[in-house]
Amino acid sequence: MKKFSVAILGCGTVGSGVAKILLDMQPMLSARAAHSITVKTIVDLFPAKSARAYNIPLSLFSGGGKDLTKEEASAYITEVINDSEIDLVVETIGGTSEYLYSVMLAAVNAKKHLVTANKAMLAEKGAGLFAAAREHNVTLGYEASVCGAVPIIKAIRECFTGDEVQEISGIMNGTSNYILSRMEHDGLDFQTALALAQKAGYAEADPTLDISGGDAAHKLVILMKLAFGADVRYADLQKTGIQTIAKEDIDFANEMNCSIKLICHAKKSRGKVFAAVMPMMVHHDNFLSKVHGATNCVEVRNAYSGKHYFVGAGAGSLETASSIVGDIVFAARYGTAVENIPASTPHTLADAEHSEFAYNITFSTEDRPGITGLITSAIGDQHINIDTVSHNRHNTKNAVFSVVTMPCTLHQINGAIAAINAKAPGLLAEEPKIIPILH
Amino acid sequence: MKKFSVAILGCGTVGSGVAKILLDMQPMLSARAAHSITVKTIVDLFPAKSARAYNIPLSLFSGGGKDLTKEEASAYITEVINDSEIDLVVETIGGTSEYLYSVMLAAVNAKKHLVTANKAMLAEKGAGLFAAAREHNVTLGYEASVCGAVPIIKAIRECFTGDEVQEISGIMNGTSNYILSRMEHDGLDFQTALALAQKAGYAEADPTLDISGGDAAHKLVILMKLAFGADVRYADLQKTGIQTIAKEDIDFANEMNCSIKLICHAKKSRGKVFAAVMPMMVHHDNFLSKVHGATNCVEVRNAYSGKHYFVGAGAGSLETASSIVGDIVFAARYGTAVENIPASTPHTLADAEHSEFAYNITFSTEDRPGITGLITSAIGDQHINIDTVSHNRHNTKNAVFSVVTMPCTLHQINGAIAAINAKAPGLLAEEPKIIPILH
Repeated sequence: MKKFSVAILGCGTVGSGVAKILLDMQPMLSARAAHSITVKTIVDLFPAKSARAYNIPLSLFSGGGKDLTKEEASAYITEVINDSEIDLVVETIGGTSEYLYSVMLAAVNAKKHLVTANKAMLAEKGAGLFAAAREHNVTLGYEASVCGAVPIIKAIRECFTGDEVQEISGIMNGTSNYILSRMEHDGLDFQTALALAQKAGYAEADPTLDISGGDAAHKLVILMKLAFGADVRYADLQKTGIQTIAKEDIDFANEMNCSIKLICHAKKSRGKVFAAVMPMMVHHDNFLSKVHGATNCVEVRNAYSGKHYFVGAGAGSLETASSIVGDIVFAARYGTAVENIPASTPHTLADAEHSEFAYNITFSTEDRPGITGLITSAIGDQHINIDTVSHNRHNTKNAVFSVVTMPCTLHQINGAIAAINAKAPGLLAEEPKIIPILH
Repeated sequence: MKKFSVAILGCGTVGSGVAKILLDMQPMLSARAAHSITVKTIVDLFPAKSARAYNIPLSLFSGGGKDLTKEEASAYITEVINDSEIDLVVETIGGTSEYLYSVMLAAVNAKKHLVTANKAMLAEKGAGLFAAAREHNVTLGYEASVCGAVPIIKAIRECFTGDEVQEISGIMNGTSNYILSRMEHDGLDFQTALALAQKAGYAEADPTLDISGGDAAHKLVILMKLAFGADVRYADLQKTGIQTIAKEDIDFANEMNCSIKLICHAKKSRGKVFAAVMPMMVHHDNFLSKVHGATNCVEVRNAYSGKHYFVGAGAGSLETASSIVGDIVFAARYGTAVENIPASTPHTLADAEHSEFAYNITFSTEDRPGITGLITSAIGDQHINIDTVSHNRHNTKNAVFSVVTMPCTLHQINGAIAAINAKAPGLLAEEPKIIPILH
């Protein structure tokens, strides 16, 4: 059996999981890959610490197991790049530094397959890496970069090749979903739920990237390239976080048979792709509404085969590592630049303001007769059909009520709000809360 | 671009869908496959009728579009087998006839890739076809044979290669799930729900194969080979249907926070695999309990990555066809005998009577004091721990009550029932209903 040598750069939470699975399952993985898969070396600054969780032999580490300076680690990484025996490099260092980018690019330029869980790098600087992989006919495996263990990358790339993806909606950030689930089921406010998420280890000390939609947006950029051939810059993607979601919004959503979820949403619309990360009111008929806690779920709507749901662990050491090892087996078995296969014709980003959704608009106003008529008239004037108008009983300070619209654009809604403000300045006590609805 | 020619044998519900997608998506499919995919011919007895639904050009049919006798069709099929230009044969004729088996085997022996949705053939006579595919290094694609559009085959074969499947539980028969859902949500009895399923086109005039678990068992045999390397004969698989499920069983399950589902269940246990198709009480915390109507759902529990769920359309013309076309693209792109890659070390079938589950046992007895004690004592004598004993209020003729056990074997339960019958002959008004519980 031909040998297939792997180097692991970075042996933290995920990297150590990769080493463990590669060592534990060596014979089975080799049978599946039709190659004898071997860990040739692991480069990490603190081998003794990194090896501990899974008892990884220190002899596998570059330098024999002693702690390394940054310069030493860097030199060992250069050795890996120059080692013609190494077939595949696993990058589990993380971050988007220029240095790391140069390492990843050098590995591909040296005709090594590259497998990574680094969503930020792929979303922000992926184009150069994919182009190099195509040029050198090596695989760039990134199953682990989107939703951890959920095999959504291969589902789109290898399974849905007889179909056309039309829409993707996903719960792709476990931290936000944990917070929203606690708010919904335990009646907590946002700050309390966030503190619990931090205590439970689901949220970082600085939770900004998770709760602002930034982390989820990295994943959506990657999926948009794969599913729609759309080159979207991370900076250009509309990101709305969950910080402004109040307990009363969640209670009201429940009354409307919906749950509020932070959704990565992308859909084809008139030759372009609308894409955004945003809180949505997900109807209880949709499986996404039933996904609680830190679990991830991706809904894919296809032209021929309709709706699919993929549910699984979005993070975790061995969970994420299993996706990386799957990519290693795939690269060893097929050995071609499979990640570059187009899943769709290229699309460009649609204008968010002109994309259509059913919306829930919550107005907080003075409490006096005539306001419902004034507001619904302004909405009707924008040719928006109204589905439901309901008084929201969860806030007593102002008159709070919600209008559920039929599909319309943000442009129309903004027009209605401008007209209300022009006609009755000061009537709106707060900026209306506008949440799109997902059925 | 190299040509890749496809012949479609049988142009019914699924075959015509395959032709439509291949024709509609030709450029995109070819880009994905890195081969120019072409439909060279379609063999069908009644082209005019078969072509109608999707406007398939009659010129694509062997014989130019005229109706064929069986002898003529057979001769055209032989032409396909002998045509060295044809790279792949799609079998969408169906059935398990010796003739069809010989055609499928001949296609593989002629070094053509074979793609089929024929679960019965694969489950009952698949071994010879897989062996021939391995020998001739061609692909045998069968994604469509299990759960229609749900990509469960490639999920296990291509995505979970960095992991070890430990347990599979699936709702794999849409007809049964439709019937159970109607019984649960609309309070119908079995016969009424079955009649509605027939009216809605979900159930055949003779629904035996669906409601008895036979259809689901075909799919489970295929998954057991793939996921566990287990060669299980269809005839040896334990199959319990849903015919005996009464409305009161469903109501009682609901009270216990469960729904009754027909589950294809397979799990590793002490080096063997337990496998059965059977109604199970699925706890409402499990996603399988939330899958209603004709939708399919497969839960996979892996050693490293934990629980996964795959939800999608289990049947339908274009839905199933999209899976077949995905297999065509896969075969054209990779072109090797990928289906033979072992997903696991080979396992053999465990003895069903000695496999452990938590069970719900419903007893229907004379209505007099002392019976609860007598029955629970008999259960305890078998070293079965009892979780809950609850009176079932939905039947007034006898005393009806349910015992939920901690994990135990059917062997232990049968021992308890025998002891009850020995001690108090005639006490049990009916044979106790024993339903395993899935959490």
